[in-house]
Amino acid sequence: MTIADGILFTDHYQLTMAQFVRMGMAERRTQFDHTFRSYPDYGSHQAGYCVAAGLEPFLAWAQAARFGPAETAALRRLRTAGGAQLFADDFLAYLSEMGGFSGLDVWAVPEGRVVHPNAPITVVQGPMVQAQLIETPLLHFINFQTLIATKASRVIEAAHGGAVLEFGMRRAQNANAASRASIIGGAVGSSNTGLSAELGWESKGTHAHSMIQVFMAVAGGELEAFRAYADVYPDDCLLLVDTIDTLESGVPNAIRVFERLRREGHRPVGIRLDSGDLAHLAVRSAAMLDAAGFEDASIVLSSQLDELTIWQIRLQIADEASRYGVDADRLLRRLVYGVGSRMATSDGDPSLDGVYKVVAVEEAGEWVPAIKISNTPAKTVNPGAKRLWRVYDDRGRASADLMALPEDDLSVRPLELVHPTLPGVHRVLPAARVSRVESLLEQVVAGGRRVGERGGVTEARDRRVSDIERLDPGVRRLVNPHTYHVSVTPSLLAMKRQLIERFGPG
Amino acid sequence: MTIADGILFTDHYQLTMAQFVRMGMAERRTQFDHTFRSYPDYGSHQAGYCVAAGLEPFLAWAQAARFGPAETAALRRLRTAGGAQLFADDFLAYLSEMGGFSGLDVWAVPEGRVVHPNAPITVVQGPMVQAQLIETPLLHFINFQTLIATKASRVIEAAHGGAVLEFGMRRAQNANAASRASIIGGAVGSSNTGLSAELGWESKGTHAHSMIQVFMAVAGGELEAFRAYADVYPDDCLLLVDTIDTLESGVPNAIRVFERLRREGHRPVGIRLDSGDLAHLAVRSAAMLDAAGFEDASIVLSSQLDELTIWQIRLQIADEASRYGVDADRLLRRLVYGVGSRMATSDGDPSLDGVYKVVAVEEAGEWVPAIKISNTPAKTVNPGAKRLWRVYDDRGRASADLMALPEDDLSVRPLELVHPTLPGVHRVLPAARVSRVESLLEQVVAGGRRVGERGGVTEARDRRVSDIERLDPGVRRLVNPHTYHVSVTPSLLAMKRQLIERFGPG
Repeated sequence: MTIADGILFTDHYQLTMAQFVRMGMAERRTQFDHTFRSYPDYGSHQAGYCVAAGLEPFLAWAQAARFGPAETAALRRLRTAGGAQLFADDFLAYLSEMGGFSGLDVWAVPEGRVVHPNAPITVVQGPMVQAQLIETPLLHFINFQTLIATKASRVIEAAHGGAVLEFGMRRAQNANAASRASIIGGAVGSSNTGLSAELGWESKGTHAHSMIQVFMAVAGGELEAFRAYADVYPDDCLLLVDTIDTLESGVPNAIRVFERLRREGHRPVGIRLDSGDLAHLAVRSAAMLDAAGFEDASIVLSSQLDELTIWQIRLQIADEASRYGVDADRLLRRLVYGVGSRMATSDGDPSLDGVYKVVAVEEAGEWVPAIKISNTPAKTVNPGAKRLWRVYDDRGRASADLMALPEDDLSVRPLELVHPTLPGVHRVLPAARVSRVESLLEQVVAGGRRVGERGGVTEARDRRVSDIERLDPGVRRLVNPHTYHVSVTPSLLAMKRQLIERFGPG
Repeated sequence: MTIADGILFTDHYQLTMAQFVRMGMAERRTQFDHTFRSYPDYGSHQAGYCVAAGLEPFLAWAQAARFGPAETAALRRLRTAGGAQLFADDFLAYLSEMGGFSGLDVWAVPEGRVVHPNAPITVVQGPMVQAQLIETPLLHFINFQTLIATKASRVIEAAHGGAVLEFGMRRAQNANAASRASIIGGAVGSSNTGLSAELGWESKGTHAHSMIQVFMAVAGGELEAFRAYADVYPDDCLLLVDTIDTLESGVPNAIRVFERLRREGHRPVGIRLDSGDLAHLAVRSAAMLDAAGFEDASIVLSSQLDELTIWQIRLQIADEASRYGVDADRLLRRLVYGVGSRMATSDGDPSLDGVYKVVAVEEAGEWVPAIKISNTPAKTVNPGAKRLWRVYDDRGRASADLMALPEDDLSVRPLELVHPTLPGVHRVLPAARVSRVESLLEQVVAGGRRVGERGGVTEARDRRVSDIERLDPGVRRLVNPHTYHVSVTPSLLAMKRQLIERFGPG
């Protein structure tokens, strides 16, 4: 780890606060909840759910991060406004001795699971100095990957069974994290070679315009370039057909090469369209490929795709295909989507508003709830060391996420769910309306050590698939989704109200 | 370097193309130009210029990246559709022997300089296999940091001399790269502790709400928390005043603590406002601080700031201050802006559309221009191994960026500048209208080795300041900026037209 990637990958104020709490409260056990405040909102179309991701990379970082000699030396160089040493030697010695995050317990909603705003997706308990110090990296790792897994999940929903490949690394802000989260969100592969290798996945790709251009500059044209490429990759021949003119040059040349491959006993993979009206060109290309007997060749679409573009392309194809004698359903099934920047950066809303707030402090063995009151009620934290449950209805569909006090009995029926901020808004679920109540948070760190099942991106992908299936279709809508219920128990709301009365202004 | 951060940090197709060109063209020298197609467009307000950044981290990566045993083993595991080994052993041996990018020459516009679309900001020449392979990391490093340095530069312009601190790491997609680029773009510091240490900068920060909340939960309230914090940081006391209620609780409590500090001979630093109507609260807080004799205390604003918000806050303060007996100009001078996610992610346009295109191939010692023709004329590359010049007018202002053939004589007057795509659009500059013609590209790598001055972020910041001063004020406008001229010489345009005729469809 370089100094910029190690334990100092954190906000300056985490360290000034650590030195401050060192004067008395450093060892006091504190609980922080990591929640996000709202679904990503891409402008015209806000998400109706999120997909958790980033936990495992965060935990790997936390296991490795240490205050070593380079870190304390860097901190020793910082000065106060008056020119004195900002961090006292005894504090630096304390950090060195502490090492890393050995005192923390962490609970989390596993990667790949569907999650909702204002309910904890990560919970940290431990000595205040450690629990506070870990805030920034926790937010950095989990906010971003959750953002991208969510966007990817929407793109995958829009593709409606069509394969989605992640092609975003050249314009991604953080390519490796984006590729990983896209795979958790449902992409079937990524062009990112190193990250794919690290995950044990096969990286995917075709070729670029440059290959054709070089041929054109020195040795003939597009057809010669395609032929040469097919010689090297006879069984993986996927040709980019828009370097000169898609319908006049690219597709006819590709078909010539495919015919030769077929004669030689190979199965051409397909073509890629990277510019122009992708829906129209897909229909026209399909007609040409079909006429030549290549009904199975894939058509890969790329160029500024996101969930709305894919949706619109599919609609246009459904309208336009028959005019060219193409079966729309069959064409839609052969499409593959190469999705780049817009998925890898979450274009439209490039940050998740995840926050990490103190919710409880231990006092003589008891958890005392803590609160931050905001003039915006939705920003007032749900206080206390609490549990997070998912309530399933009689059809097995997720009906609400429910925060509860540890002593709340969730087996009682009817089950009462109240809104965390809107007074009087509540639902009462009789036994017949509740098929299951599931605990969402799993312990992943105990006393600084990784516990529980580790799982990779494959397990996370599977969790997403089952959670999405259990969502109401209205919540899955791409535009104007139905609002999923995030509720609290009556006893949790009562405790929150007491704290607001005690600590509120006036 | 892990496998995901090393030489396999690239798109899969770069490697399949490398194996392909290995069959004949691998060693043929090729030139690629890295350009971006358009200024970032944040919705209502498109940028009028960009600030180059990311070159040095890219070059550091390129110097270190190598095909070692782990990399070739990972590639050996990849399969064709038919189940065979995708990358042949002799190709893998070739990569191992090649090692890294030892054959490349690179020219670039130095970090911090103002740059414009469709003119090369990075130029790579070398054996085709290496020049192609380096595309993805080059784009990843330079596109993103240029995007953020540009956004930061706009935020700094909006702050109009007020200090801007980068506070974005918790919701950044890539915090270290974003912090670095923000500093190049003009931020005076960052909260990012590790990255600041790596750059030799002092990280900056205050404290969080959690500090107050913990006090409230176990030991009194906001005032006690402020007092305790002032005891630890008597010379760096900057207090966050919105945990309970800014005007009713936070500012009065801060003033009590500041009065004690003053009696004890310390100078309080100031307050931070993190929620509510920041402009109004700044005016009201300033009135209270002034009345207590703390006219010099800084007022740090944070919470969802970007260039437009800062601009609007400054306008509102100018309107509202006098109503509360506050001098607006003096208040504006004491403001500090803590800018987070919106700068660190380039909210509104989270990717720069940088591309990397073949422009020339060497043939018997001569550079043969290459072209990719697009149906969108602006996307057709400006072909050929060329030069990039900046033309300054008689006031010393940058008047145009000009691409020229190597043999073009730029000392000829009048100087003729033609539009690269719009027929007939041209300007003729007489000698009196041209004060200087400056070459923008500097060689930074020769035969794979770093050459030229290396410079750090400080030098890059200085370059930005002088380039911004030489821009027309219209180009610097935050909204609807004047379009800067990017031109070509008549001879370059003639060559481009010949190529379009030769290789265009039909």
